[in-house]
Amino acid sequence: MSTDAILDASLLEQIAFDAAGLVPVVAQQFDTGEVLMLAWMNRDAVRETLLRRQVCYWSRSRAALWRKGETSGQHQRLVELRLDCDGDALLALVDQSGVACHTGRRDCFYRAARPQGWTPIAEPLVAPERLYRATADH
Amino acid sequence: MSTDAILDASLLEQIAFDAAGLVPVVAQQFDTGEVLMLAWMNRDAVRETLLRRQVCYWSRSRAALWRKGETSGQHQRLVELRLDCDGDALLALVDQSGVACHTGRRDCFYRAARPQGWTPIAEPLVAPERLYRATADH
Repeated sequence: MSTDAILDASLLEQIAFDAAGLVPVVAQQFDTGEVLMLAWMNRDAVRETLLRRQVCYWSRSRAALWRKGETSGQHQRLVELRLDCDGDALLALVDQSGVACHTGRRDCFYRAARPQGWTPIAEPLVAPERLYRATADH
Repeated sequence: MSTDAILDASLLEQIAFDAAGLVPVVAQQFDTGEVLMLAWMNRDAVRETLLRRQVCYWSRSRAALWRKGETSGQHQRLVELRLDCDGDALLALVDQSGVACHTGRRDCFYRAARPQGWTPIAEPLVAPERLYRATADH
């Protein structure tokens, strides 16, 4: 069997993709434990991520493979991919270059529930316009 | 306005629930950073979680509110709820009593991608049959 066929049989077949062919993925910084973002992968994105060891998602808004960092430079190197007990969620331990969020913040979960509403608890580390030129990475 | 109405206007209205009325939630142990599980909430589950400060999910398999720990005793006390940049994913910082996973493991992401397949990297800390009597919590 080719590498692809082995990968398909041993790993991809065990993932319970949803009706749209997607699985949610939690990206966590491998050494600090920060939860960086939640995104989605289809079968091709999981395969590419495992083969290239660089995280590739499926962009639901663009309906295309989303090679994280391709336009922003903020790559995620894959350290380890984990599957949950039900087979329907992935945890990607990654090494994030720079910031994960398209707003320029380190992670996407920067708003906390407070009595007065969702309240920002982190500032951008990079101006978003410095991350992107013509196209959006998010 | 009642507490409920304030909660709805200030917090629930900002969440982008999907077509099924659900939002994915990452549960993370607040002090160690462990990613415990990924589950789903509907509007009522978010409201109850914020009001009771005990995590309540929506069980897609049972189509019912799932008060985490109700049958297993493995509760999740809410420390903070966070919303992501797109408003379509939540991060719940929790204090997990015992184990999060119905297999008796501390977290649900106990299988790592290896060339030979998904490989368990954690053992159960509690026998699943000790967690459940007649009904399942998961």
